[in-house]
Amino acid sequence: MDFEIIKPADIEKRSFAIITEELGDRVFPEEIGLVVKRVIHTSADFDYADNLVFSEGAVPRALEAIRNGAHIVTDTNMVKAGINKKTLAKFGGEVHCFVADADVAEEAKQRGVTRSTVSMERAAKLDVPVIFAIGNAPTALIELDRLMREQDLKPELIIGVPVGFVNVVESKELILQSQAPHIVARGRKGGSNVAAAIVNALLYQLVHREGF
Amino acid sequence: MDFEIIKPADIEKRSFAIITEELGDRVFPEEIGLVVKRVIHTSADFDYADNLVFSEGAVPRALEAIRNGAHIVTDTNMVKAGINKKTLAKFGGEVHCFVADADVAEEAKQRGVTRSTVSMERAAKLDVPVIFAIGNAPTALIELDRLMREQDLKPELIIGVPVGFVNVVESKELILQSQAPHIVARGRKGGSNVAAAIVNALLYQLVHREGF
Repeated sequence: MDFEIIKPADIEKRSFAIITEELGDRVFPEEIGLVVKRVIHTSADFDYADNLVFSEGAVPRALEAIRNGAHIVTDTNMVKAGINKKTLAKFGGEVHCFVADADVAEEAKQRGVTRSTVSMERAAKLDVPVIFAIGNAPTALIELDRLMREQDLKPELIIGVPVGFVNVVESKELILQSQAPHIVARGRKGGSNVAAAIVNALLYQLVHREGF
Repeated sequence: MDFEIIKPADIEKRSFAIITEELGDRVFPEEIGLVVKRVIHTSADFDYADNLVFSEGAVPRALEAIRNGAHIVTDTNMVKAGINKKTLAKFGGEVHCFVADADVAEEAKQRGVTRSTVSMERAAKLDVPVIFAIGNAPTALIELDRLMREQDLKPELIIGVPVGFVNVVESKELILQSQAPHIVARGRKGGSNVAAAIVNALLYQLVHREGF
């Protein structure tokens, strides 16, 4: 078996070069391209070159929010596990995920709603600027939409990339039609890995820009 | 926006029905179909119907191993986060991930190898039957192949689903050519979510079979 002899630190650079080459004529503004390419890097799925939708100015606004210490709320512990928390901490941010909390499960059961719905309500009470990274639960996006309309929640960014077959496409369309700054994977695809990759793509851009 | 009104508990059932319908003529033996469909459920990517390769008898052997208390070793904390650890614990199993241990990083640096390589060496020293779930690091698969050839490591199963562009395809071919029981996503695709989904598909089959 022939392996390419390459230092661990160079693997990512080489991977991004391959992705750029295979994207061919598909050229993106740099701030967006770095996100798109990291998502392809984490999935080997070039469909994301077509289905990722960025609202106007979403990336620069998110970078500014992170630089000012915004926190990140995820819908699952898997997204939380994938985020580079050390890098986020350099800017003062933390990652929160309420979905596995025992009292969230209890409340969801009593009210007959999903744990994701309850965990978004908890997140809305954080008194810091927040970026939401949703990789699994359409009900999290539905609840965020409600909180924005009814309780004036103003997220710094919604990363809306749940994956799946039931209510997923529709929940993402809600966010696409909202006023919230967003990065959404239109259609069925997405996932924890995609949500974490988008957050990390933002973090690494900021590190690069700030010269950390 | 029209959402399908559906109880949280029924969403998964409905998703699997949609996947089965869209697979059409692609019918799998049940034990394999349950794995393939859960991977599609976690990725919305039907390519996995074609690229997942199962060695002869891999699923029943893995189920037996889990039933007898086999442990699971992952290459990243994201795979670990995605595995249903409560269900695994019912059978006596635990999930291990050594890659983020401080002394693993130190040793990898000194030897000029990846942390994944060192963490597979650590895993090989566990004195319990082990299923390896590798979602990211081709070097983990390369090291497992070496440990099997040189140190008689005998995994109960290798889930070989790293994702990426450099040495990924080749590392998976190594496992496909090995004697180890395996489930491999041939080609570039895979990921933490896919590795965790395969483990969970095995766990849920076993729970169903054992009537838990």
